[in-house]
Amino acid sequence: MTTEARPLLAITMGDPAGVGPEVVVSALSRRQVRAACRPLVIGEARGLRRAAEALARRFSPKLVETASEADEHPSRICLLDLANADPEQIPVGAVSAAAGRAAAAYIEEAVSLALSGEVAGLVTAPINKQALRLAGVPYPGHTEMLAARCGVLEVAMMLIHGDMRVSHVTTHLALREACLRVTRARVLSVIRLTEKALRSMGHLRPRIAVAGLNPHAGESGLFGEEEIREIAPAVAEARSAGIAAVGPLPPDTVFARHRAGEFDAVVAMTHDHGHIAVKTVGFSPGRAGGLRSAGVNVTLGLPIVRTSVDHGTAFDLAGKGLADPSSMVSAILLAAKMSAPAAAPARP
Amino acid sequence: MTTEARPLLAITMGDPAGVGPEVVVSALSRRQVRAACRPLVIGEARGLRRAAEALARRFSPKLVETASEADEHPSRICLLDLANADPEQIPVGAVSAAAGRAAAAYIEEAVSLALSGEVAGLVTAPINKQALRLAGVPYPGHTEMLAARCGVLEVAMMLIHGDMRVSHVTTHLALREACLRVTRARVLSVIRLTEKALRSMGHLRPRIAVAGLNPHAGESGLFGEEEIREIAPAVAEARSAGIAAVGPLPPDTVFARHRAGEFDAVVAMTHDHGHIAVKTVGFSPGRAGGLRSAGVNVTLGLPIVRTSVDHGTAFDLAGKGLADPSSMVSAILLAAKMSAPAAAPARP
Repeated sequence: MTTEARPLLAITMGDPAGVGPEVVVSALSRRQVRAACRPLVIGEARGLRRAAEALARRFSPKLVETASEADEHPSRICLLDLANADPEQIPVGAVSAAAGRAAAAYIEEAVSLALSGEVAGLVTAPINKQALRLAGVPYPGHTEMLAARCGVLEVAMMLIHGDMRVSHVTTHLALREACLRVTRARVLSVIRLTEKALRSMGHLRPRIAVAGLNPHAGESGLFGEEEIREIAPAVAEARSAGIAAVGPLPPDTVFARHRAGEFDAVVAMTHDHGHIAVKTVGFSPGRAGGLRSAGVNVTLGLPIVRTSVDHGTAFDLAGKGLADPSSMVSAILLAAKMSAPAAAPARP
Repeated sequence: MTTEARPLLAITMGDPAGVGPEVVVSALSRRQVRAACRPLVIGEARGLRRAAEALARRFSPKLVETASEADEHPSRICLLDLANADPEQIPVGAVSAAAGRAAAAYIEEAVSLALSGEVAGLVTAPINKQALRLAGVPYPGHTEMLAARCGVLEVAMMLIHGDMRVSHVTTHLALREACLRVTRARVLSVIRLTEKALRSMGHLRPRIAVAGLNPHAGESGLFGEEEIREIAPAVAEARSAGIAAVGPLPPDTVFARHRAGEFDAVVAMTHDHGHIAVKTVGFSPGRAGGLRSAGVNVTLGLPIVRTSVDHGTAFDLAGKGLADPSSMVSAILLAAKMSAPAAAPARP
């Protein structure tokens, strides 16, 4: 890969009080990450300096005013310093309105750059829902904010870890409510978004397994009819549109079959069907206690490339230099891959 | 362990047309299995002979008329031949009423022996629900049949693989219906059954994690109230009864925490929360195609020890000598452990 082929990626610093600044600094010190992209951090110089100190690591980004200025320094880590999070005002490890406001501003700026094409994609560090609320930000999280700013209604979350890729028909809803949202139209939409995403990740003819909602995928209607009424027709429609989708398959074995290489991705009906599969395999005990993961969260359906870490602000770990950057590393590498010019060939 | 300490276990042959006879013959050829128990197969001599031929293996059980006769031959594999499944009449790999009837008779006989104390426990090979129905057996599967024969109402399924142990508050129900069955009384009952089972497996002070039903365990009521209304009160009641239960915990990370050693078992609210966790980790590609597993299914709440393979009759594999016996081996070893006299100390 020539230097010029590396995409310019906006990387938000996340909530200044969480582990975001540390995982950004750690991840950007990796040679592999620098070989894959030109990073433009959207954040705050003092917050990053504090993180570098906690990590006992040197971090000297090139301060820029615009993305095009970053373009002129391809060998440097560049920083757009919004200077909105004075470490004196924002203690590490605590929820605050100031931190929520700052974190939201990084996302706003990064989305603008992505929508205008000044950066090739967007990688986000963790934010805190409670801090956003305190700050009066009218969105509960990244996904809703990004969908609104991009003007799209139909998005889906894909969780990726190693060779596992799982997208979700429903996410943050009570399970009873989620069952009602498993509709033919939504299932078809997520199958389509999944296929498009897999293509942008380099799969030429993606094989997609569609999980059922009920035990044994309903066992021919014995344990629920969503498979017959909603999911099977969506799969049939996807297939007649030329997508290599199969299903509905029993939820309890479809992920093992995916791991064994039978499919390139699974479309799961609920948050926890998908998340249990990916996290039970992908999370392992971390050196700082708790669990570490190299998983990545991708928002499908946006007009821009967007990946994210799959962990939260971890206030209990923040400021200690112990947070594991694996998920941030994976998120950056995947965004680089998805935003490379040749990554998304038109369907044949 | 002295020879005499090995418990006498009833092992049913399962549906004669499925892989049951083959996994029984294969498993009983293992030295480790014979060292752990004295096996009394409840089945049919001709069906086992056919299986041994498919496996190109010698299998010469001692024919007995009663369990006490088996007691006199501790070094032999004994067989109670019900002579009810003529291979000429029951082709391998097909659903039939004759096979369903035969399989049900093995279970009936084995339960009688277990209830009368003539055997220390019961291990079951797979049966076919459709064959049972054709045979007019009034139960959809093992669990219902065992509960009825033992006169108990409150049972629970625990799925075990390696160090993962997951019991289930609901199983074969539509997911919408399962949500309604997550009640305080049922959750408490399954916590109690789980604790008792862990003790019988040698855990002196079992640590039990109770999963939530909804994403993020409801996030304080934001995504569902079952955690607040039903699950948390059940956990509190269990704790005040001296059980080391914690929860409700987010379903998507609780199984990873269990794998990491934080808990001895997880109580899952739905069939697929638990089964996805165990099977996605435990199933791996088999040499005959499909997936192989060394998982075990245990029925909690019965007055007898009962374990089972975690796979079905696999008619497509039956008769080919290719079925993997790992699950049957694990099921026998666990039943032996659970039925050893010292295995179930009274709570302190």
